[in-house]
Amino acid sequence: MRDFSQSHDMLSLNTATVRKQLGVETPLPKILDQCAKLGIRAIAPWRDQIHSTGLVETSKLVRSLDLKLSGVARGGMFTATDDAGLKLAAEDNRRAVDEACELNSACLVLVVGALPGALQGKAAHKNIALSRQQVTDGVGTLLEYARKQNMPLAIEPLHPMYAADRACINTMEHALDVCDALDPQRSGMLGVAVDMYHVWWDPKLKQQIDRAGRERLLAFHVCDWLTPTTDLLLDRGMPGDGVIDIKQARGWVEAHGFNGYAEVEIFSNRWWALSGEETLKTCIERHKTAV
Amino acid sequence: MRDFSQSHDMLSLNTATVRKQLGVETPLPKILDQCAKLGIRAIAPWRDQIHSTGLVETSKLVRSLDLKLSGVARGGMFTATDDAGLKLAAEDNRRAVDEACELNSACLVLVVGALPGALQGKAAHKNIALSRQQVTDGVGTLLEYARKQNMPLAIEPLHPMYAADRACINTMEHALDVCDALDPQRSGMLGVAVDMYHVWWDPKLKQQIDRAGRERLLAFHVCDWLTPTTDLLLDRGMPGDGVIDIKQARGWVEAHGFNGYAEVEIFSNRWWALSGEETLKTCIERHKTAV
Repeated sequence: MRDFSQSHDMLSLNTATVRKQLGVETPLPKILDQCAKLGIRAIAPWRDQIHSTGLVETSKLVRSLDLKLSGVARGGMFTATDDAGLKLAAEDNRRAVDEACELNSACLVLVVGALPGALQGKAAHKNIALSRQQVTDGVGTLLEYARKQNMPLAIEPLHPMYAADRACINTMEHALDVCDALDPQRSGMLGVAVDMYHVWWDPKLKQQIDRAGRERLLAFHVCDWLTPTTDLLLDRGMPGDGVIDIKQARGWVEAHGFNGYAEVEIFSNRWWALSGEETLKTCIERHKTAV
Repeated sequence: MRDFSQSHDMLSLNTATVRKQLGVETPLPKILDQCAKLGIRAIAPWRDQIHSTGLVETSKLVRSLDLKLSGVARGGMFTATDDAGLKLAAEDNRRAVDEACELNSACLVLVVGALPGALQGKAAHKNIALSRQQVTDGVGTLLEYARKQNMPLAIEPLHPMYAADRACINTMEHALDVCDALDPQRSGMLGVAVDMYHVWWDPKLKQQIDRAGRERLLAFHVCDWLTPTTDLLLDRGMPGDGVIDIKQARGWVEAHGFNGYAEVEIFSNRWWALSGEETLKTCIERHKTAV
């Protein structure tokens, strides 16, 4: 297992972690500049942030600052109520692959979607099995395109509390079932993003990490589960502040040769109320002690 | 599959559903009286409510009103930081079995506990595997006692969002693994409480219901998952108001011969702000249309 205690070379910042600073939406160029100044060498930007800045401009900045991308957040949202909706989703996902390629990302992270309309407060139906089939079909179609572009797709199992509105793939086992169905040759082009917030509770976590193996372990995300958790979306904890044994799981992942970044991704009103500098310095400190 | 559309004979009221009425804590005798007046024939009371009323008095009331118990909520909370704590938990669980026997309950529901201290806001450790071992040991010890009393124990897998603070058994599969280890003979004395709120999202739900079979399907609880869900504990939905296909799952359970009550259990600040009569009448209506 790699020693993180002496440097933060393997820290990647998911840019949502500081997308609001002192409560204000913060432009991506400022975030990238802050990272560079603090010696953070890798990032995972969100597509809405990339679009606000412009893909070409983002790409220039990333290259000039010599930043690596542990991922692009996010493709996915494959489900819809009709063929037109499915087609729009497929098109948007091809653009996401293109953007990830332009930024030379390690992978495109997929948050696969769930019951159509649920995120807007009104689910169009209750048939989660149908949504899961649409997801498998959508990932399969996108995989053909991604293979040509040589961009690995990382399915991110989301915590079951997001099964209705954000992602209907909620366990490593389910994600790997989809991977095995679509990529039985284990080509390295389809795998999982292991986000500790989403999977820490799973009694089969180690078993499924072992099943995944090096070819399917494409990303490792860290934050912590707080007790109590006061909000389903915006109360994630800084590593070390909660109950997740992150180091143990990192050991399990690295035992298979995973040598990518530990990407810190924290959606939190608490941290968004602080300055970017304070949040980033805490990320660096905790990367050394709690990741 | 049984037809519930014409009567609410098979509705059981988990008394937490109306434990607050118009915002005020409501005594159990009043709740039981309300049930009897509305033709609700079964209940599942909480132990703190039983203790407030007194076990003997509760037992008298239950008999005089001819109410059946679909379960007693709850035994469990098996985890601790030391032997003294484990011993206290074991003793309390034996009392819970005794109380369930006195009330002639169909089963004692077990919410098994998680990381010690987490529910109070400060977990004593992060070793969820240790908690799971303590739970298996605790259920095993209690099972010996429960067998003598002829009181079935129903492990309730709780939603993974409660894995840290309330129950570290979070899937049907895990619960049934514990059942198979402790009761390989499938005696009918150890099984699961299938609460749709906790397990609806699981892609292996039907598979594990089929694995459970009649001997292990001891209780069926209903409420609904709202989108959005605004609180991790107190924003459960009335059946029909959310995304769970309750009827489909009831069909799966009944295909194995389950013929018990559908127990409605809703913790909700929204419903607790209303009168008990309004909440109970809505439960009855939804039992006929959405369960």
